[in-house]
Amino acid sequence: MADGMKFPTSLGTSTADEIRLLGQDLTADLMGKVGFGELAFWLVTLRRPTPSETRVFEAVLVALADHGFTPTAIAARVTYLSAPDSLQGALAAGLLGGGSRFLGVTEDCGMFLHEALDGRDLPTDDTGWDALALEVVSAARESGKYLPGLGHPVHKVLDPRTPVLIGIAREEGLEGPHLQLFQAIGRVHEQVLGRKLPLNGAGVCGAALADLGLPVEMLRGFALLARAAGLLGQLAEERRRPIGMDIYSTIDRNAVYVDPES
Amino acid sequence: MADGMKFPTSLGTSTADEIRLLGQDLTADLMGKVGFGELAFWLVTLRRPTPSETRVFEAVLVALADHGFTPTAIAARVTYLSAPDSLQGALAAGLLGGGSRFLGVTEDCGMFLHEALDGRDLPTDDTGWDALALEVVSAARESGKYLPGLGHPVHKVLDPRTPVLIGIAREEGLEGPHLQLFQAIGRVHEQVLGRKLPLNGAGVCGAALADLGLPVEMLRGFALLARAAGLLGQLAEERRRPIGMDIYSTIDRNAVYVDPES
Amino acid sequence: MADGMKFPTSLGTSTADEIRLLGQDLTADLMGKVGFGELAFWLVTLRRPTPSETRVFEAVLVALADHGFTPTAIAARVTYLSAPDSLQGALAAGLLGGGSRFLGVTEDCGMFLHEALDGRDLPTDDTGWDALALEVVSAARESGKYLPGLGHPVHKVLDPRTPVLIGIAREEGLEGPHLQLFQAIGRVHEQVLGRKLPLNGAGVCGAALADLGLPVEMLRGFALLARAAGLLGQLAEERRRPIGMDIYSTIDRNAVYVDPES
Amino acid sequence: MADGMKFPTSLGTSTADEIRLLGQDLTADLMGKVGFGELAFWLVTLRRPTPSETRVFEAVLVALADHGFTPTAIAARVTYLSAPDSLQGALAAGLLGGGSRFLGVTEDCGMFLHEALDGRDLPTDDTGWDALALEVVSAARESGKYLPGLGHPVHKVLDPRTPVLIGIAREEGLEGPHLQLFQAIGRVHEQVLGRKLPLNGAGVCGAALADLGLPVEMLRGFALLARAAGLLGQLAEERRRPIGMDIYSTIDRNAVYVDPES
Repeated sequence: MADGMKFPTSLGTSTADEIRLLGQDLTADLMGKVGFGELAFWLVTLRRPTPSETRVFEAVLVALADHGFTPTAIAARVTYLSAPDSLQGALAAGLLGGGSRFLGVTEDCGMFLHEALDGRDLPTDDTGWDALALEVVSAARESGKYLPGLGHPVHKVLDPRTPVLIGIAREEGLEGPHLQLFQAIGRVHEQVLGRKLPLNGAGVCGAALADLGLPVEMLRGFALLARAAGLLGQLAEERRRPIGMDIYSTIDRNAVYVDPES
Repeated sequence: MADGMKFPTSLGTSTADEIRLLGQDLTADLMGKVGFGELAFWLVTLRRPTPSETRVFEAVLVALADHGFTPTAIAARVTYLSAPDSLQGALAAGLLGGGSRFLGVTEDCGMFLHEALDGRDLPTDDTGWDALALEVVSAARESGKYLPGLGHPVHKVLDPRTPVLIGIAREEGLEGPHLQLFQAIGRVHEQVLGRKLPLNGAGVCGAALADLGLPVEMLRGFALLARAAGLLGQLAEERRRPIGMDIYSTIDRNAVYVDPES
Repeated sequence: MADGMKFPTSLGTSTADEIRLLGQDLTADLMGKVGFGELAFWLVTLRRPTPSETRVFEAVLVALADHGFTPTAIAARVTYLSAPDSLQGALAAGLLGGGSRFLGVTEDCGMFLHEALDGRDLPTDDTGWDALALEVVSAARESGKYLPGLGHPVHKVLDPRTPVLIGIAREEGLEGPHLQLFQAIGRVHEQVLGRKLPLNGAGVCGAALADLGLPVEMLRGFALLARAAGLLGQLAEERRRPIGMDIYSTIDRNAVYVDPES
Repeated sequence: MADGMKFPTSLGTSTADEIRLLGQDLTADLMGKVGFGELAFWLVTLRRPTPSETRVFEAVLVALADHGFTPTAIAARVTYLSAPDSLQGALAAGLLGGGSRFLGVTEDCGMFLHEALDGRDLPTDDTGWDALALEVVSAARESGKYLPGLGHPVHKVLDPRTPVLIGIAREEGLEGPHLQLFQAIGRVHEQVLGRKLPLNGAGVCGAALADLGLPVEMLRGFALLARAAGLLGQLAEERRRPIGMDIYSTIDRNAVYVDPES
């Protein structure tokens, strides 16, 4: 009953004098003392990340924040054009494109690697990783499963984000099994697939987030958080130099009516 | 024409070899080198904030990230219950509550102070600020306008975020005219309104963001970004220890049918 | 208290044996006996519309359902491209564009006419309506207020929906004061504004809905309901013959990077 | 190229003189002549439904429009409380709950039946349908697949919508293979599952929509359209007699802080 029903939480609560968040006093312990990326990590995992973890985590958020005129940016801009009174609506419209196809690769890749590693003894050298990767790629191919994190429409040879993010994780001592397996897939997949594809940026971000111990079912959420910042940038730019009307008229003016009977 | 139509942007673009963002090389200049809060500020303003500005900015984001079981958290949780396949939908549903009434105070307050200061010579001491505040509060009262940033349903005497955020801004040398005027309003409003109300946390956040030079029409956007992190925390908690069904059944079980004719 | 808190409603409730809606037995009184448009009207007003009211109401919904590649359709299509797993997300993204600028005219016009008529003795002939219209248009012009329902980017001389909807309302005996005043504005505005503009379709829909006695603050809602049907059509077409990727690549390929410093 | 790129559609287009929709002249052929439910069917299928099809279709929409204080209604109401300036946001927040778990049953059931029937010779009598149903239920059970359309939390013995909708479809000569198989599942599932469950209303709606020849991948869309009308009713009621604040305070006041370390 409503009647005695209680709703437990470890996030925010407050009394007349104090505001608590994550077991901390918000004003004494958090404001001015914890960064925003750090807090986002903490809110999801209930543990404060180390400075090294924060650096890798923020590098991922920076990598995913904005990729130009993606479907998410287009949706946000034309929604803002149409309903400028509701910034939250334009932002929400953009985020709704963060689904399986575009922003989903980060989560798919983290989850794929996570499942591939589940219950395994981890290899101790590159030869071992390559053998495991070969097994994983072959199994995916046989079962007709899609192999996330490979290939990119623009960066056909090398996605520049991939080596940079791996380098940052290595510097911070956070190059774990997901990144190891991902790199091994990069080395061996050609033997199975018959062609060489680059390891893409969305994929390496998923591997790095999984190595940080973040829950793989929530990885899409971090991509969405990163994109929220990017979409604010898009909407601020739409205010300064609007292109929403040009997007709309470019599409509308080139509409061709096709008789449904034909 | 589509036909030659071009879409300018200073945010993300890419070629086969390079990814550019904000006039920088994403991988060489940004990843691992800029924090996430810093990047969000930069994306909106097109200028990189100083470390002091970043600290104040992130303190605001931290203050606004999560306020417990607000309407935004409730909407996100029951949407996740109902459509667990779409994390983006649950996040978007939560953000859609970031409108005029709850998250809007930050923007309203920043905008109110901004307009009050517009075109004025700035006072040079507290006496001057108090005189200006008295004028502003009286004008708002006479025109029946709502005075944003005053009062709080829980923190009836003092909102603990207010002195802490002002202190951080002062430490960083970023206590500007918006914070000055806001504090003066705190000192003088009782003379006009006949009762003493605390300066609330949402309001002081708006004043601090405006002092950072952020565009006042976008302040709601920063509250939404902060809340996006908080909502991820809520949704991660909903996965670990679900309460969505309890929320639903608490309301549904206590529904009372009222005949529309009555 | 939760603790005894009750939530009254005149909409849906159910017991083990019966489902009630709007004071009716859903299965015995409504299913198969009431049309969908009729029910939508009833849900908002708590009264069942007459057949004449239903005809005018549905004519409005039909008029507003789809206007081709509008911002709402574009947002829905690119969101579906990006997140095909979430039809509800694509629909929601489309509806979020139903704000002040595009779909808002229907509500704005109904509300404008409603306020103009409020507390007035109604004229009894065209001369009287013209005099009132002249007063209303002059007052709007003087106060710099925007006059909703006038002008259209494509239908520069006559919006074909306007005479047709007025004709349907007249046939059904439902041409009330809002439609009268709207037509009078069509006759006299040139005297004040110095140029002749057509009464547009969105505007006449708002006038007709207001004459049906629908609450003017909810008129946007009916435009959204109509558009929900149109967006389902857009999304079904996107499944059959996708253009989302062409929209995306048309914009993205024509992006031009502008240095933020410049 | 944008550069010659064309965007085909059979939905809305317009010239200065004429507005076309679905191969019709909007004003001459549709307004006042086609009902709103009829148009929604037509927009998705590109064919005008018969009066019998329209009656069954609208009976489904009526059945699905509102189920009281569901997660969708709760999300819409608290979002409206929080952002009353954006009716579209509150509506969108409600629709975002139309996912796999609540509104999804209609689509799941239609799709399940559709796949079960695919490529089969259809039985000609009840004995034949029962045999097919037994096979289908057994196969689902063996593969651990969920069987949609069975059981209901409130209507534990009989969902009153089920016989009524089947009756309407029968009256209109539209009781096709999906409804036949669904009823046979109702007769035989106890033999396999060991307990008798009612055929639920969401499931029978999916079967009836599939029998109308509607694309099964779009069935969720019709549930969303129906719910859009119900949510407008909820929001109109929220304006008249608000409960959003009571929902919020019921949850918030009963929050219990749990130390994350514990």
